[in-house]
Parts: sequence; structure tokens; C-alpha cells
Amino acid sequence: MSTHRNVELPRADPTPTAPVRHALANGATWEGVDVLRYKQDPGVPFKDVTRQVLFQQPTLGCELRYFEVAPGGYSTLERHEHSHAVLILRGTGRCLVGDAVHLLGLHDLVHIPAMTWHQFRAGPDQPLGFLCMVNQQRDRPQLPTAAEQAALADHPAIAAFLAGPELPLP
Amino acid sequence: MSTHRNVELPRADPTPTAPVRHALANGATWEGVDVLRYKQDPGVPFKDVTRQVLFQQPTLGCELRYFEVAPGGYSTLERHEHSHAVLILRGTGRCLVGDAVHLLGLHDLVHIPAMTWHQFRAGPDQPLGFLCMVNQQRDRPQLPTAAEQAALADHPAIAAFLAGPELPLP
Repeated sequence: MSTHRNVELPRADPTPTAPVRHALANGATWEGVDVLRYKQDPGVPFKDVTRQVLFQQPTLGCELRYFEVAPGGYSTLERHEHSHAVLILRGTGRCLVGDAVHLLGLHDLVHIPAMTWHQFRAGPDQPLGFLCMVNQQRDRPQLPTAAEQAALADHPAIAAFLAGPELPLP
Repeated sequence: MSTHRNVELPRADPTPTAPVRHALANGATWEGVDVLRYKQDPGVPFKDVTRQVLFQQPTLGCELRYFEVAPGGYSTLERHEHSHAVLILRGTGRCLVGDAVHLLGLHDLVHIPAMTWHQFRAGPDQPLGFLCMVNQQRDRPQLPTAAEQAALADHPAIAAFLAGPELPLP
């Protein structure tokens, strides 16, 4: 797992130059912004997630990305030294942060502290789209060992969360 | 104007601690987030703008703020060495970036490069609410001199923009 602790270089996504890039019809894609695979690494578990890099510039300490989890999908269960600052831009879903599961709705804010297990899951009938602000220079995510995953699943609420897809939201 | 070039210390706004802070009914205010005055400095021109600091943490290189310009309002016409990364979260309006005026709608992205005159204006009948990502360590804004403002207003489109409020959007 030691390579997961290395600092990750900035990715080769294009740097925006246009002063204004309009959102396209669904409000979740943009002019000049590529819809990318969520993770490049093979073997990392996730389901039906896309990544778009909205702002990534040498003069900014952070990047702003947009992730969209399709209905029934989920992001990787992981942790890392860097923190995440998240705003829900579209849809609803749930997230695990540490040992608690939270219901998420439009414009809710999520703070993922350092070295805290986390995962985002869309409900079965709606996508979950969110902005994520993160330092440009950051460590690579760590995946849970089998023992760590079993310890998480000792919490009934987390076991139910990890077993998704969840019931439709009220 | 030399004091405007000093690096500004991080503001004393509260650091978020809750993993999830839900958006309140209108989606433009949040649990535990204060609605603040847009600018602290007296004599800086603006009209009907509020500021909310959504994420400001020592471990993050940037802050994420939410500004809302009420109908007919406008942010300060200014420039600075640091850049802005903006996403329109609510309503419609217009912005000046350099020597061009842009129409803005939901989820549009705006990049304000270094030392570029810029201003955001809501239309007469809708607010303009936007997220703004900015380096924590940054220089203070500079205001235009009378000569600089006159040079901007030599462009008819900019003169019309600065004379707002604009006509209702189609």
C-alpha cells in the first residue's frame, strides 16, 4: 500500500482558458470540459461514476471537480491525508463519513477530514452529482484492508449502506 | 494604492467542523454558515451583495465562498493578482471580465485571470448567486482610478453594463 501514500502529481487535464464556459442543457456538463473516467487505476472498486475537472490552474492551490454517480452507483470507499470540501450540485444520495451515514440533498455541504473513510452513493432512482474542492498537491487514496472493511461493517447502519442500493428516498 | 497589494491574512470566519451541513429551504443558506457583509472596507462600491464562507480550513489551499447579488445589485468593480474560479449556483445575471460582458445562467463557469477588471451584476428581477474558489493567501483587490474607469466605459457594451440595471433577461 506504500505507493498509495505518494504525493500525486497534477493530472494532465486541460487548463481552462475561456473566461466563461456555459453549462450545457442538463446543467451537469460544460462547454470545453471532458467527461472522464472517475479513476485511472485498474482494480479500484466503484460503480458508474464520472469525473469532470472544472478548474485546474497552476496559480490556484486547489482544483474544483464535478463527480456524478449514476442511480445505484457508488464512489470508491477510501481515505487519505488530504481533506475534501464537497457541495451537492444535483440529485440526492447518501454518504459515509467516518462511522456515520448521512442523507444528502441539493446544495448540502460535506467535509471529509483527513484519514477518514468515506464513500458517496446515489439512490436507486436519482443521480448524485457533487462538486469537490481538493488541494492540487495531495496524497493518493488508501483502500480498506479486508479487516478494516469488516470493522466498518460491524456498524449495522454502515453495513446497510455498503450493501446498497438503498430504498428510494422519501 | 500600495496597501492593496499586501497579502491578506485568512479571515476570522468560523472553520466548519460538522461532516454534513444541510442547505436550508432556499438552497442558498446553510446550517452553521453566517450570512456576512460582502466587504468589510468602508467606501468600496457595491450594492446588495452578501458573502457566506462555505469552506475555510488550514489544510486546504483555497476557500470556497458563496456570494449572492440581489436583483439590481452588483459586486465591486476590481482587479487583483489572484484568480477567481466561479460557478453560478442560482439565478442569472451578467459579468464583466476584462473588456467583455457575458450573460450568465445556472452552473456556468467563470474564470477571472490575474489583474483583470471584473464585476458581477444581477438582472433586475432575479438574484445572481455564485460559488467562488480563491487561494487562502491572496492579495487585496485594487479599485479602478477615475481614468481607468473612463477607459473601460469607452467600450459601449461596458458602458451599458456599468450603467445597469440591465433589461430583464429573455
